[in-house]
Amino acid sequence: MKEYKFALVGATGVVGRIARTVLEEKKLPISEYVFFASSKSAGTEIEFMGKKYIVRELKEDSFDEGFDFAVFSAGGETSKKFSPIAASKGCVVVDNSSAFRMDPEVPLVVPEVNPETIKDNKGIIANPNCSTIQAVVALKPLDDKYKIKRVVYSTYQAVSGAGIHGINDLENGIKNYGTEEKYDLEKFPYPIFNNCLPHIDVFLDNGYTKEEEKMINETRKILNKPDLAVTATTVRVPVFNSHSESINIEFENDFELNDLIENLRNAPGVIIEDDVQNNVYPLAMNANNHDEVFVGRIRRDFSVKSGINLWVVADNTRKGAASNAIQIVEKMIEMDK
Amino acid sequence: MKEYKFALVGATGVVGRIARTVLEEKKLPISEYVFFASSKSAGTEIEFMGKKYIVRELKEDSFDEGFDFAVFSAGGETSKKFSPIAASKGCVVVDNSSAFRMDPEVPLVVPEVNPETIKDNKGIIANPNCSTIQAVVALKPLDDKYKIKRVVYSTYQAVSGAGIHGINDLENGIKNYGTEEKYDLEKFPYPIFNNCLPHIDVFLDNGYTKEEEKMINETRKILNKPDLAVTATTVRVPVFNSHSESINIEFENDFELNDLIENLRNAPGVIIEDDVQNNVYPLAMNANNHDEVFVGRIRRDFSVKSGINLWVVADNTRKGAASNAIQIVEKMIEMDK
Repeated sequence: MKEYKFALVGATGVVGRIARTVLEEKKLPISEYVFFASSKSAGTEIEFMGKKYIVRELKEDSFDEGFDFAVFSAGGETSKKFSPIAASKGCVVVDNSSAFRMDPEVPLVVPEVNPETIKDNKGIIANPNCSTIQAVVALKPLDDKYKIKRVVYSTYQAVSGAGIHGINDLENGIKNYGTEEKYDLEKFPYPIFNNCLPHIDVFLDNGYTKEEEKMINETRKILNKPDLAVTATTVRVPVFNSHSESINIEFENDFELNDLIENLRNAPGVIIEDDVQNNVYPLAMNANNHDEVFVGRIRRDFSVKSGINLWVVADNTRKGAASNAIQIVEKMIEMDK
Repeated sequence: MKEYKFALVGATGVVGRIARTVLEEKKLPISEYVFFASSKSAGTEIEFMGKKYIVRELKEDSFDEGFDFAVFSAGGETSKKFSPIAASKGCVVVDNSSAFRMDPEVPLVVPEVNPETIKDNKGIIANPNCSTIQAVVALKPLDDKYKIKRVVYSTYQAVSGAGIHGINDLENGIKNYGTEEKYDLEKFPYPIFNNCLPHIDVFLDNGYTKEEEKMINETRKILNKPDLAVTATTVRVPVFNSHSESINIEFENDFELNDLIENLRNAPGVIIEDDVQNNVYPLAMNANNHDEVFVGRIRRDFSVKSGINLWVVADNTRKGAASNAIQIVEKMIEMDK
């Protein structure tokens, strides 16, 4: 059985840490793991699969020794600089930043949705934005059967998506509750504790945030529907982990609600949690540490001829980031057999 | 100048307390205030406008002494029983429960939106649901000018809307953070701390919650558009006070975005907070203790011919409940001059 050499870039960040956990769980046929980070975190000792590793500093010659696969989760600037170098040395990079996602030469992959695009890669595969990944896992089986006409997204996104400083802002707010003490915000422009911020990533000239633009454009690219009508409002909420989404969908075709639910139930990566009379619906607290996308509150939207409302929840650091990237690597290993 | 006798029913609850504050601020021409509550809270001493009052137990003969106006905020059962009694004794009741809202004989009033319906009352006026009030204050000026065709609501609702036990659930979650101690939930079926609950009020047979149904039906009634296409997903978030709403609106008519914003800016009860390049947008933390509805993130929805997305925030215990009810009383006093 073929074995591979694998690099994790950004190994000490929030997503890097989760990626190590996912790799330990998946036990892929990888014979050698190398962990990279910036000079600041290089030298850190980490334990992985019962062995100790020293995190190495990412340098221009880091990929000279030859890697099969790398997962990058170290921000857009690092990806822009080092992914092409890695690819030029024969490594296939799965990049978790937004740097290459809309590049027409780069496949943007969710393994349950468009695995067939993996083979088109020229050394770089983009991992979509967290909020997009969980949405398209639910949208794809519906689009296949009923042809999606329009999507309206409103998101409830956890602070872990903003990295350790976002997590610290919420944690500091909680710890200061009831005291008069001030605390410095590390990430967000306003307190996220006891507040909702309709502001994720930077604002664009058209009034949308980059996060909203990502959801719109990435949904179109992954579903291979470049003209799909999509709009989005993305919001940070005071939850540590797992994003929730209110998704309103209009279809071209008619549907029977029970058929639609069965269609979703049989879709890869989807778990239906929808028994409202018994208070069963997806919750951030239950999605944590899972790789599936939880779908519930599935009900007909009576305001259009053929439409539904959904409540979709997933672990944004796992399915929305680390797990999806490693599932892409897993898929490439399968395809290589 | 005519002076009035006023009763506050449910004076010791979350909304009752805010109503007392709003009454102290407004200094209406009221010569006598009487505070009622259930037998459990009767006897409580409260301070109001510098005087001490003893809260009285609400009884069937409580309105025999003659009142001009009453605000009821003591739940649907109390309203159903006592509002008709009060009305039969010549008191005009502004009822904050959902008991009479959809009764075709009962006006459902937001003073900025449909004050003309007040005069149709037969002794009971219904105060709309909190999430509806703030939405229609923003929708009305847009409907007048551009004719609303369809609305998609997704809400981010604070725990104060669920009363003191909802507040306690969030507070206990915060205080227990980082400990292993268990705490009993008083109100919600799951922890609201560090979680979003797509479940407000009870579930109906069609999969919607009663809260969602209220938003849909009350929006239609208040805007006097019984066939308006509206859908809603209502969600409780871990915020103590002030509801946020993501509202997607489709219009019959075309619009120019700057005109639309000016139209909203000039609308009664609306404050525009929309300068995203300087991180200005409505926030729950800023809406607290205000009676206005804050509107921002106003941007064209490119997924339809003529549509926008809005982010609308208001203090749910004030504008969404106590203040709106007392503004109705204020309007009646004006009309009585």
